[in-house]
Amino acid sequence: MEIIKEQFEVRQYNGKLDFKDIPELKLVEAELMKAVSDTNGTVRDMCIHILDAGGKRIRPLLVIYSGLIFGENTPELLQTAVAAELIHMASLIHDDIVDNSVLRRSRPSINSIWGNNFAVLGGDYLFAKAFGILSSKNLNCGMEYMVEAIQSMCGGEIVQAEDRFNCDCSLEEYYEKIACKTAILLKCCCQAGAAAQNAAQEEIELIGEYGLNLGLAFQITDDILDLCGSSELTGKPKREDLRQGIISMPIIYLLGNKANHHWVKNVIEERKFDDDTISKICSVIAKTGIMEKCYDRVRIHIEKAQKSLDNLPDSYHKEILYRLADMVYARMN
Amino acid sequence: MEIIKEQFEVRQYNGKLDFKDIPELKLVEAELMKAVSDTNGTVRDMCIHILDAGGKRIRPLLVIYSGLIFGENTPELLQTAVAAELIHMASLIHDDIVDNSVLRRSRPSINSIWGNNFAVLGGDYLFAKAFGILSSKNLNCGMEYMVEAIQSMCGGEIVQAEDRFNCDCSLEEYYEKIACKTAILLKCCCQAGAAAQNAAQEEIELIGEYGLNLGLAFQITDDILDLCGSSELTGKPKREDLRQGIISMPIIYLLGNKANHHWVKNVIEERKFDDDTISKICSVIAKTGIMEKCYDRVRIHIEKAQKSLDNLPDSYHKEILYRLADMVYARMN
Repeated sequence: MEIIKEQFEVRQYNGKLDFKDIPELKLVEAELMKAVSDTNGTVRDMCIHILDAGGKRIRPLLVIYSGLIFGENTPELLQTAVAAELIHMASLIHDDIVDNSVLRRSRPSINSIWGNNFAVLGGDYLFAKAFGILSSKNLNCGMEYMVEAIQSMCGGEIVQAEDRFNCDCSLEEYYEKIACKTAILLKCCCQAGAAAQNAAQEEIELIGEYGLNLGLAFQITDDILDLCGSSELTGKPKREDLRQGIISMPIIYLLGNKANHHWVKNVIEERKFDDDTISKICSVIAKTGIMEKCYDRVRIHIEKAQKSLDNLPDSYHKEILYRLADMVYARMN
Repeated sequence: MEIIKEQFEVRQYNGKLDFKDIPELKLVEAELMKAVSDTNGTVRDMCIHILDAGGKRIRPLLVIYSGLIFGENTPELLQTAVAAELIHMASLIHDDIVDNSVLRRSRPSINSIWGNNFAVLGGDYLFAKAFGILSSKNLNCGMEYMVEAIQSMCGGEIVQAEDRFNCDCSLEEYYEKIACKTAILLKCCCQAGAAAQNAAQEEIELIGEYGLNLGLAFQITDDILDLCGSSELTGKPKREDLRQGIISMPIIYLLGNKANHHWVKNVIEERKFDDDTISKICSVIAKTGIMEKCYDRVRIHIEKAQKSLDNLPDSYHKEILYRLADMVYARMN
């Protein structure tokens, strides 16, 4: 990949993984606005609120750039990308109901402004809108991948909800959950983009591997940031996941540490999440090298993601995807 | 239609609009069970709960019987019918969150057993399952009609939620809401069935008219029953809609009655729904001939529905649809 890196002039984006300046994503932004512009009243207000809150638009970027490796840009690719972002938005709205979250992307969440009842319907509306786009344009490939992604997300979120405060959660189970709730959508975005351009089945699988590993790296990073990052980076209150009983990778490693197992298990099971206790958990995680172990895992997935790209046709767009993976790592440091 | 009625031996079903004994619906039932059988844990429990609660299975009946007017039964028709019922189930789960309902089909609602967070995800899962079936079998027609139906339902539910306790709601606005939240799905079920059998566009429109009017008749009946029916028939606590501020047809007529306008408006706007007041509202509705006016409306829609069938090819299945419309009326008496 080193040669490719030199062959292409790679545009620089800011470190916050915000790609809205990329020309293709400007089109996505305009299409997203168009998609919600035929609404009115509360639906419209909710849609505009979530559009304005921004977001990294990684999913449409993955659809389009995965597609562009295999051919020129097409309206179908753009519409698949728009549908992917609408599905992501819908799932965020519903997740915030599930988690009772009051903040999303540093702004009040839809449920905290309009209440759960409107938030349920707002999410449904965006799901339907996404499928409307995919079905009206006969984007069957996109449809299949997006359906797979939604089924995974729901399944993952449900298992996560069942598994709250469960200190017996294994690293394997953690991976299963983050794959379902985050990584499979990223994988499906990449695959939908490639499939829309008639890539070969093995190419679709490789780009899917890229997306999956990028998603795993991204979610593990998110879980690290929840414990150690600033609210500014995550847009959510710090340590919210832990308070909600979500057992993430650093906590699994901490529970696996004999010296700390019992008191940490007791804290979680008894839900004793006062500020001092949470600070203690974070400081033990930092002192015992657990952060480094998690970073190593992130690195492994980024490398796997980048390696998956090696056997795909070289192109400027592949290079951007390669760099995107590096940026996930950079986000933590 | 009289001749047709004699030409065919029409099977009798019980007056409760329960069609599960119809052979085609037994297949639907088996497929519904199959559709949820690859789930586990809480998802599975929620799905089984809602399947076991029964329901009239009118939507799959409409898909299949509309289709059978135009050709032999096919696996595609069956799968479209299954998807339609899954979408209906998903929307019921979400509606119960929106309305804070504790009962559905005389049983505790999903949200009252598992909480809103699981109910949101359970509904999403069933939506995704339905779209998964439609996309994996390349049922593009079904997909388009179902997407239209979901968009309408969300839009209708949102407007209804916005419009609670609004005593200025006109009859036109009421019609718009019940079309969106109920009748368009029935219309789309009929159209999806006919389209799956390659019916001509004007035939698809006629069968759609049937479904729309059947749906309007059905929802007006439901609204009458909410005020005057028994909980046994509706499976929901009596007068729950009124307590929730939903302004239905009988209430609109009552508000349009000069002698009663002011006190009724005051009751609704001040939310003074004690048992005595609600009894008074119901007794005034009964005494002032409002029920008859509502029944007349139901009758008009049933006749319109049946008239739409006149220009479609005669068949046993058309006859059943004709009789089905009569049964909606019979339900009230």
